[in-house]
Amino acid sequence: MPELDLKTYLSQRVTFVDAALERFLPAADTRPASLHAAMRHSVFAGGKRLRPILCLAAAEACGGTRERALFAAGAVECLHTYSLIHDDLPCMDDDDMRRGVPTCHKVYGEAVALLAGDALQALAFELVARTPVTHRHSPADMVTLLARTAGSLHLVGGQVADLEGEGKKLPLEDLRYIHESKTAALLTASVKLGGMSADATPEQMQALHDFGMATGLAFQIIDDILDVTQTSEKLGKSAGKDVATEKSTYPALMGLDASRAEAHRLTDAAHAALEVFGPNGVWLRALADYLLQRDY
Amino acid sequence: MPELDLKTYLSQRVTFVDAALERFLPAADTRPASLHAAMRHSVFAGGKRLRPILCLAAAEACGGTRERALFAAGAVECLHTYSLIHDDLPCMDDDDMRRGVPTCHKVYGEAVALLAGDALQALAFELVARTPVTHRHSPADMVTLLARTAGSLHLVGGQVADLEGEGKKLPLEDLRYIHESKTAALLTASVKLGGMSADATPEQMQALHDFGMATGLAFQIIDDILDVTQTSEKLGKSAGKDVATEKSTYPALMGLDASRAEAHRLTDAAHAALEVFGPNGVWLRALADYLLQRDY
Repeated sequence: MPELDLKTYLSQRVTFVDAALERFLPAADTRPASLHAAMRHSVFAGGKRLRPILCLAAAEACGGTRERALFAAGAVECLHTYSLIHDDLPCMDDDDMRRGVPTCHKVYGEAVALLAGDALQALAFELVARTPVTHRHSPADMVTLLARTAGSLHLVGGQVADLEGEGKKLPLEDLRYIHESKTAALLTASVKLGGMSADATPEQMQALHDFGMATGLAFQIIDDILDVTQTSEKLGKSAGKDVATEKSTYPALMGLDASRAEAHRLTDAAHAALEVFGPNGVWLRALADYLLQRDY
Repeated sequence: MPELDLKTYLSQRVTFVDAALERFLPAADTRPASLHAAMRHSVFAGGKRLRPILCLAAAEACGGTRERALFAAGAVECLHTYSLIHDDLPCMDDDDMRRGVPTCHKVYGEAVALLAGDALQALAFELVARTPVTHRHSPADMVTLLARTAGSLHLVGGQVADLEGEGKKLPLEDLRYIHESKTAALLTASVKLGGMSADATPEQMQALHDFGMATGLAFQIIDDILDVTQTSEKLGKSAGKDVATEKSTYPALMGLDASRAEAHRLTDAAHAALEVFGPNGVWLRALADYLLQRDY
């Protein structure tokens, strides 16, 4: 996969996803204007759209179209953005910058930021429910998957475990649980929802599950590594935060080299999962490589 | 409708709804335990279950069963509870007491309370998506209704408008928008979701819509009145808060007598909407009367 091709692919997909999000979100002057401006501030704050792009690529790997996967792609980005807005609030991680711009509550205040996150979660479910029904999967099935992913056993549960683990040296098993819940679960849901929109077979769904879990955990391990090795300017957010808050991370528990090796091992597992898709899995494979090719 | 019968009905319905919520919520010791304990703290904090009971009654008014409406009933209660938890947070209304017990963040801290609310919103969508499909309505249709109700144009939008209206004397039209968005929208969704679970006809859906909007607005006007006329002990939450924070309320804008008259007028409109159901609407009618029979 030539580097130029992936860049073009990503750029085109970002444009495609952004145009959809532009339609999916109420206009910034919709009443109440502060709320809709806040939602748009965070949704259009320069995110790389990795989750929706993975969702679209998974749909195509299963023989579907990106058009049918678009509601699910918008949904996972809205859900991801809501979780970032809430994570950044003062009572949580208390972050001032995100993706190189001020966080939602720094611009719109805590109350409106909290509510913008709440509204984005609701919008995620409204969007995914609009997916056309397929032979094997109903939009209600997709809502169920997204809701379980977003709920107390995965996304939110991982966030609580993460907060409660601050300042403690966690066993690696607990850290893995946090990373799987906070990050891998939503990446996995992203590809599975794409697959469902494309009438994926049980075998394809299992492959997307394995691919998502491996890629998601690898992605989070790299995120841990980048926090140690990169500057705030390059990250577009406060760097060294994990060390400052004594958070358990893969580098802290395993060291940098072992963490890098684990990320590579997981990428191999992700590649293996994609074999079932044959040539249709080429972009999912390229995306997994891209996630590991970040400068760590 | 004899008073004793309604009391027995409500008591039986609370027991029925509570038993369902007990099954729907993960056990309090499910990992992470603090999160699940916080969710249960607020869900089982003595709520009257008005929304789920209205949902079940609407299903029966349309010839359906309470069993088929049960997922929707649980969903609206989870959504309502999430909105209360977030409303009570320090950056919002900053309330210490709710339904006579300490608010979620007073017991579990702000971060866990915020996340418990987030998880309850996700659970609401997981539950409503489990409703069996009917001829006219799919669970995805129900998710769409619940998501729009919960989102930036209704529940969350009304909350933002409410916050931004504090300390201002709002036009009555704006106050009505806030009450309709914050309160009437979810009551309306509660009865419409019950109807959808029972394969309601378009005529029945319209009647439930009209009933819900009239009852919901009346309910909120009475809530405004009670804040002026009742003690904190009787309300189970801080009284006089609206006056203290200079919030616009119906009594402040119209006076107490006109507010009471408006509540009664809306009840009549609610009654009129129920005519289409004939004798099957008897409990919805009794519930509307009950909402107005609170001691104001």
